[in-house]
Amino acid sequence: MKMKALVLSPESRLNEVCSEKCRALLNEHFDTSWNDTGRDYTKEELAAMVSEAEVILTSWGSPSITEEALENAVKLRAVGHAAGTVKKLVPKPIFSKGIRVYSAAPRIALSVGEYCLGALLSMLRYLPTLNTSLHDGQWRELGLKGRELTGSTVGIVSASSTARAFIKLLAPFQVNVLLYDPFLSEEAAAQLNVKRATLEEVMSCPIISVHVPNLPATERMISRELIERIPDGAIFINSSRAQCLDKEAFMEALESGRFFAALDVFEQEPLPVDHPVRKLPNVLITPHVAGASVQGHLALMQAVVEDIIRGLHDEKTSFEVSEKMWEIMA
Amino acid sequence: MKMKALVLSPESRLNEVCSEKCRALLNEHFDTSWNDTGRDYTKEELAAMVSEAEVILTSWGSPSITEEALENAVKLRAVGHAAGTVKKLVPKPIFSKGIRVYSAAPRIALSVGEYCLGALLSMLRYLPTLNTSLHDGQWRELGLKGRELTGSTVGIVSASSTARAFIKLLAPFQVNVLLYDPFLSEEAAAQLNVKRATLEEVMSCPIISVHVPNLPATERMISRELIERIPDGAIFINSSRAQCLDKEAFMEALESGRFFAALDVFEQEPLPVDHPVRKLPNVLITPHVAGASVQGHLALMQAVVEDIIRGLHDEKTSFEVSEKMWEIMA
Repeated sequence: MKMKALVLSPESRLNEVCSEKCRALLNEHFDTSWNDTGRDYTKEELAAMVSEAEVILTSWGSPSITEEALENAVKLRAVGHAAGTVKKLVPKPIFSKGIRVYSAAPRIALSVGEYCLGALLSMLRYLPTLNTSLHDGQWRELGLKGRELTGSTVGIVSASSTARAFIKLLAPFQVNVLLYDPFLSEEAAAQLNVKRATLEEVMSCPIISVHVPNLPATERMISRELIERIPDGAIFINSSRAQCLDKEAFMEALESGRFFAALDVFEQEPLPVDHPVRKLPNVLITPHVAGASVQGHLALMQAVVEDIIRGLHDEKTSFEVSEKMWEIMA
Repeated sequence: MKMKALVLSPESRLNEVCSEKCRALLNEHFDTSWNDTGRDYTKEELAAMVSEAEVILTSWGSPSITEEALENAVKLRAVGHAAGTVKKLVPKPIFSKGIRVYSAAPRIALSVGEYCLGALLSMLRYLPTLNTSLHDGQWRELGLKGRELTGSTVGIVSASSTARAFIKLLAPFQVNVLLYDPFLSEEAAAQLNVKRATLEEVMSCPIISVHVPNLPATERMISRELIERIPDGAIFINSSRAQCLDKEAFMEALESGRFFAALDVFEQEPLPVDHPVRKLPNVLITPHVAGASVQGHLALMQAVVEDIIRGLHDEKTSFEVSEKMWEIMA
C-alpha cells in the first residue's frame, strides 16, 4: 500500500513549483491528496487531514504546521517544503518526534548563484550602462573599458548554499576565492577550493559577494569600518539580506561613487519610490529576484519529493533540515 | 648572446598591451629595441631595422610587414602580434621563409567568452530592464520572471577561439551544446564536450551564439529562413561580425520582438545614430567591446612573447598561426 501524501498548496500556487513530471512522481510513489479547493485549507480542515498524512508537502504561503497540529500528526514521517526557509513552517518539537524535514532552499540557491555571476559579469563589462548609452544614440563616448573576471580575487561572506552555488559557477574563471564563515572548517574550505579568510580580508577584495542569513547575529555585521575597506572600483554584490549592513555607512559609501554594487535586497521592500539608491548610476538594482526563475521555481517540489523518497529508503539526502540547521536558520 | 627583438608599437600604444612583467620578460630573453620615438616607425626606418631583427613584436596599428620588407628580414625568425588577426600584418610568403607567426587572438577570445556569458545571464534574468525599471521608481511592475541557464540547450555557430572560450565557461551549467562548424571533426567535438549539429539545428536552439569569422564564405550565411527558425523567447548573441546575417530579415525579426538579442557588432560601426536597433527594448547593445578588457589587453604581448620563447625552444606553441590558418583568417 502506498503512503499517504498531502499537498497543501492550492493548484494556482502549485503550478509554479510543481512540474508535470513531479505530479507523476508523487502519484507513482504516494497516495496523494491534491488541494483542489482553489484556496488554502482552513485550520480545521488541516487538523483533520494531518492525522492521516504520512508526508506533507508545502510551498510559499502554506499554513504553518503548529504544535497543536503536530499533536494530531501521528502518522507523519516527513514534511517537504518546496520553497526556502522552514523556520516559520514547522515548530522545533517536530525534530524530537522523528519527523524528517526537507527544504528546497539549496535548489533556490542555484538561481541565486546564476544571478550573482550574471550581475558580476554584467557590471565588470558595464553592460547596463553601455546598453543605455547605445540606446541613447551614443557609441563609445563613455570611454568605459571592461574588466575580466578570470584570475581575479573574489571575497565571499558566509558559506551558505547560495554562496556555494555561486562558487561552483566560478570554477572555470580560475579565481582566488576568499571565504569568511566562522563555522567553515579547513577541510570544508579545501573541498570548496576556497581559502578561509577574516571578514576584514574578504571586505578588502576587488569583488565581494554577501550571502549571510538574516539573523540577530548578522545584523549590521558589515560595519562602517568594514565598508570603508571596500577598495575603490570594487564590485559589491548583495543577494542575501540588507540588514547585515550598517545602512547609513553603506549609503554614504555608495553615494561617493567610489565602487560599484549589485543590490537585489533592501531594508524595506518594496524599495521606497524616493529611496536615494534609485538615483545612483554605480548601482545595479533588482527587485529581490535573485532566487526567482521559471525553471528554478518549477524544480522546487521535485527536489524535495525526490529527497523524501531517498530518505524513506534510508539513502543519503541533500535537502534535509536538521534541528541544528533549523536553529540557525533565518 | 641574446637574440634581437624589435618592438614596433610606440610607448603610448604599448602600455595598453604590454605589462611590466612582459617588458621584464622581453629584456630578460632578448636584446630588445623599444620604440621610443613617440610615433610609428616610417617605412624607411622599418626597412633598416628589419634586417637586424630576429623577433618582431607588433600590436594594433603597427605598420604591415610588406613583401619588400620581408626581403631584408634575413635574420627574422618570428613575428608576434599582440592583437587579433595577422591577415593584413604579414604577407603569405612569410610562411615559406620559415618565419613563425604568432597572434594573441586566442587570448582576446577569453574576454569575448566572458562577454558572451555575461550578456547571456544578464538577458536571461532581465538585469538591464529591471535595473532601468528600478531606477525609474518601480518595483515588480514589469512582472518579469527570469530564466535559468543550468540544463539549457545552447547552439553555437562556428568553433572559433571565441566559441571555445565561451564553451569553457559554460561547463558548470551542465548545458547541452550544439555546435555547427563544417570543419569540426567528431573527435574535436567530443573533446569540447559538444554535439555536432547542422546550422538549422543550432538556429532552432533557445540560446544561440554566433562566432563566425568575417569571410566571403560566411557573408549572409544566416539567411532569412534560418532567422525564422529562432524560437520565440530565444536569446541570440552576436559577438563576431554582423555581415554573417541577412540584415533585412534580421532587423524585421528583431522588430517583431519575438526573441531577444545581445549585439556587440553591426554592419556599420560606429552604429548610425538613427539606426532602428537603438529603439528596441529586446536588444542589449554594446559598442564592439566584447574582446576589450583592461586585463585582457594587458595580457596580449605576454601571451605571444611566452609562446615565441616556447617556439624557439622547440616546445609546443598555442598562439602560432599556420599558413593554412592565415588563408581562412578574416
